[in-house]
Amino acid sequence: MFDYRRTHNCGALRKEQIGQSVTLSGWVHRRRDHGGLIFIDLRDRFGLTQLVFDPEKNPQLHQTSEKLRSEWVISIKGMVIARREGMSNSKLATGDIEVLVQELEVLSKAKTPPFSICDEINEANEELRLKYRYLDMRRGDIAEKLVKRHHAMLAIRKHLDQQGFLEISTPILGKSTPEGARDYLVPSRIYPGSFYALPQSPQIFKQLLMVGGMDRYFQIAPCFRDEDLRADRQPEFTQIDIEMSFGKVETLMSILESLIKVIFKECNHIDVAVPFRTMDYKTCMDRYGCDRPDLRFGMELEVLDDIAKKSTFSVFHDQLNEGGTVKGLCVKGGADISRKSIDEYTEFVGRLGVKGLAWMKLQENGLNSSIVKFFSEDLQKELIQRLHVQAGDLIFMIADAPNRANQALDHLRRRLARDRDLISKDKLEFLWVTDFPLFIWNEDQRRVESAHHPFTSPHFEDIHLMEKEPLKVRSLAYDLVLNGYEIGGGSQRIHNSDLQQKIFELLKLTPEEVKTKFGFFIEALTYGTPPHLGIALGLDRVMMILTKTENIRDVIAFPKTQKASDLMMESPSQVAHDQLVDLGIAIIE
Amino acid sequence: MFDYRRTHNCGALRKEQIGQSVTLSGWVHRRRDHGGLIFIDLRDRFGLTQLVFDPEKNPQLHQTSEKLRSEWVISIKGMVIARREGMSNSKLATGDIEVLVQELEVLSKAKTPPFSICDEINEANEELRLKYRYLDMRRGDIAEKLVKRHHAMLAIRKHLDQQGFLEISTPILGKSTPEGARDYLVPSRIYPGSFYALPQSPQIFKQLLMVGGMDRYFQIAPCFRDEDLRADRQPEFTQIDIEMSFGKVETLMSILESLIKVIFKECNHIDVAVPFRTMDYKTCMDRYGCDRPDLRFGMELEVLDDIAKKSTFSVFHDQLNEGGTVKGLCVKGGADISRKSIDEYTEFVGRLGVKGLAWMKLQENGLNSSIVKFFSEDLQKELIQRLHVQAGDLIFMIADAPNRANQALDHLRRRLARDRDLISKDKLEFLWVTDFPLFIWNEDQRRVESAHHPFTSPHFEDIHLMEKEPLKVRSLAYDLVLNGYEIGGGSQRIHNSDLQQKIFELLKLTPEEVKTKFGFFIEALTYGTPPHLGIALGLDRVMMILTKTENIRDVIAFPKTQKASDLMMESPSQVAHDQLVDLGIAIIE
Repeated sequence: MFDYRRTHNCGALRKEQIGQSVTLSGWVHRRRDHGGLIFIDLRDRFGLTQLVFDPEKNPQLHQTSEKLRSEWVISIKGMVIARREGMSNSKLATGDIEVLVQELEVLSKAKTPPFSICDEINEANEELRLKYRYLDMRRGDIAEKLVKRHHAMLAIRKHLDQQGFLEISTPILGKSTPEGARDYLVPSRIYPGSFYALPQSPQIFKQLLMVGGMDRYFQIAPCFRDEDLRADRQPEFTQIDIEMSFGKVETLMSILESLIKVIFKECNHIDVAVPFRTMDYKTCMDRYGCDRPDLRFGMELEVLDDIAKKSTFSVFHDQLNEGGTVKGLCVKGGADISRKSIDEYTEFVGRLGVKGLAWMKLQENGLNSSIVKFFSEDLQKELIQRLHVQAGDLIFMIADAPNRANQALDHLRRRLARDRDLISKDKLEFLWVTDFPLFIWNEDQRRVESAHHPFTSPHFEDIHLMEKEPLKVRSLAYDLVLNGYEIGGGSQRIHNSDLQQKIFELLKLTPEEVKTKFGFFIEALTYGTPPHLGIALGLDRVMMILTKTENIRDVIAFPKTQKASDLMMESPSQVAHDQLVDLGIAIIE
Repeated sequence: MFDYRRTHNCGALRKEQIGQSVTLSGWVHRRRDHGGLIFIDLRDRFGLTQLVFDPEKNPQLHQTSEKLRSEWVISIKGMVIARREGMSNSKLATGDIEVLVQELEVLSKAKTPPFSICDEINEANEELRLKYRYLDMRRGDIAEKLVKRHHAMLAIRKHLDQQGFLEISTPILGKSTPEGARDYLVPSRIYPGSFYALPQSPQIFKQLLMVGGMDRYFQIAPCFRDEDLRADRQPEFTQIDIEMSFGKVETLMSILESLIKVIFKECNHIDVAVPFRTMDYKTCMDRYGCDRPDLRFGMELEVLDDIAKKSTFSVFHDQLNEGGTVKGLCVKGGADISRKSIDEYTEFVGRLGVKGLAWMKLQENGLNSSIVKFFSEDLQKELIQRLHVQAGDLIFMIADAPNRANQALDHLRRRLARDRDLISKDKLEFLWVTDFPLFIWNEDQRRVESAHHPFTSPHFEDIHLMEKEPLKVRSLAYDLVLNGYEIGGGSQRIHNSDLQQKIFELLKLTPEEVKTKFGFFIEALTYGTPPHLGIALGLDRVMMILTKTENIRDVIAFPKTQKASDLMMESPSQVAHDQLVDLGIAIIE
């Protein structure tokens, strides 16, 4: 029997091995006939090695090799030889050598695949690629991303272990919670009519581990949300979930920074500078119109309310009188933007609900625009100064309700950066966003509600504001933002049951509601809870950034479509009637 | 605000730190009043440190300390001092020192817990302990097991990474398979009437990863089975799942042995001797009556058919004539076993369906027993020789159908070992059991069926027997056994579609059935499949052995009961009607 165990993988052989007898196994990547000689590129996930079948040296083997087809799995024994003068391939790690085949065994044949494995880019549509995921995986780019994901996960685990964190697995058969996104349910056979739920995150479990004294916990945790999916979401996704006791926000931030540093170093050989910048929520909203700003480029927003007020432009006055705001940004060198493009941008912000987009260009003769006339010369100077406008720049201004103006300017800013190619691809701009509001106002129910969750701790300095000005209370929640994506978020939790009680009162929850909604968890907190805090990082998002892809499916071995189906397994699928009877459930039309 | 960040944990301080100012945070474990001085044992998962409150040095603080109760979480600042002469506690790592408290902050108070945290053994029943899992976790023994599990998982990951294995996560929202144990189902909202299933193992995914060229895969994988649970099972359990391409059985065995060596070294500082012993299935059944023998003790079985035939004992003759067998074992020094005990053993095997238990004692005057008379003197000699009987030993013999005789003798052998204290607690006896039969006979359907699964490769030497004597065909399946427990199992898979086709024919599956049952997976195998093989180890079982517990719940952070319920979360639970409507299902009575 042919022994197919390799001496080397297909990416390993170099000049140094010339003269050695080797066994290689892998897939037939390409076959070329060249004047009698047959060349096979043999492939595995490590690389390609060129095999040579010489009719003069072994006519019978040469004949067999003619039958080989793409994607057949073969094993060969042969001699490593130098490629002939001028035939080296510097693009290939093994490009200096080839293997003269002496024995060949076909391990398994292959049907013609539905798309070519050997093309650099897979032209097949994504549905076909997902149906034949195992074939798409043979192409280098998916495999490379999965390899990187493996390295990232291992680096995370080693580093957190060194920092004293224990990886503890928490249940996947959990309990449906009354709040949050929609749960995936699992009917119980033993308790008919009852259900487990798949966890949206291990939040409650990790807090219980802190109550249990486990001190520092982490988990690379599968999480589930039954939501209508956006392009960058999956029904099951992975969180790097972390919680620690007896630390403060700065302790956690510094641990996270060291973790991020290790991940980027290990996976992409990049030195990330730490500590990261920190910006409070209010500043973020003022300067960028959003709480996850992309700091790879400038174009910060400026509030122009005072200038607008002094102008004679009634559109601005009307907005200000209705409680709106006027904000603007300066596009460096933007005076070259055509009227047509300006109209497109106006339409763009219009789709976000904003009625108009004011603009001015600073040219040699001063500010130009149809609305310049509403601004006195002094006011124009003030505007130029405020927005740091230089000759050749363009100003955009929006007057609207603060939320709408911010949203529109945020989108406009990011679109301008793309259109004007301001984003350096290799730049990594990390940012901690802190001091989120603890509460938001629920107009329907005329009460405050938690912005994050009711266990998030208020800023200690703001506790005195809780009764009278709750909307001014800042929380100890924080998000980690990278290049405009939120890659993680967490908070210091409340560990003091008196403070927790006060929060519930402010949320206007009755003791009965507290019990129904948070029952056993609240009880757990009363048995001696250490101060604790944590964070969850989105591993899939981090991997997308590390592998430079916009497609979340690229970083998952067997992903689902946006409609949450697995095209390869054809799942979800119908099941036997008996199975449903066992579970005490029926399908209703 | 009091800064509760620790300078040391509660297990860290030694003589060397005497004179240092420290901050400690943790739980009040015990409080003792001793003539004015108050002593608090402060606890965290790292240990205990004795705190001293001295009324003469700080009367106000001393008064506050009187209010402290068990399980309150406090933080203190103080000075490390030597314990007074003769007051050292050598049982405690911190037993040479104590901390004279200068500042105290109560971080959170605690209700009286439902059971004591500070007793060595928790006398509370397991239901109460599971309901308050987070409190039980504060006791050292559960925490210690979770810490060990963390170390084991990390050691596994590091080692397999070094061996070139990639950790790749496979879906948890999978597909219900027509064979195997009962699946947990997850109703799909987007495709009403369709279901996902939670994976019983990642078997199909890992084979697809090999088809996809990923070469070497592993995963510490959550798996799910909706079965009526035995004491040592959980509805969700964890597998160390491994698969590799282009290897042979011996390659995989040696990788596994190195892995086991690393786990035992890392967790328990034990040097496991490798390679492990190997025994084929037939020898196992002959010598031990089971396929997972406990080799920590002897008492091997012997087939006595030939001797029985030459005797005049009609009970033996009757069994042999009906196709039965006569097997026996020798209990060293067992002549001291009383008639009463022999009756108990007879009853014991009787409960396993065996009609009688024959016995003989070798005493100074020769073999003694009511049945000795049926054996000639020569035959008695033969029996003594076959079973290596010495003076003072006892023989047990069973005549029955082979399966029943084997089962009874296996149980009897293990019971005798326990009763006679033959099992050294620290012994580790690993064994590879190989060459399982490929097929078993399905009497109902008058056909062979796969003993393992239809993708298990036959022994190459036995392929010629497949048509005519299929039950004689050995498979390339193997189990890893430790101290009588099966801790893992796997096989070389079929990678050749012709051979796969032949297996399906022998199993009398029609092409339609093949398609329905194995559909997309069979298609995947036709696109060029490398030879591959793998194994799955039960992590929970390995952890039970490493932490010397018989209770699987001890090695899982948040386990479920034997009835698959989570007493802490009260899960499974009822869910809102709306949730079921969303999923298009209804509960039927």
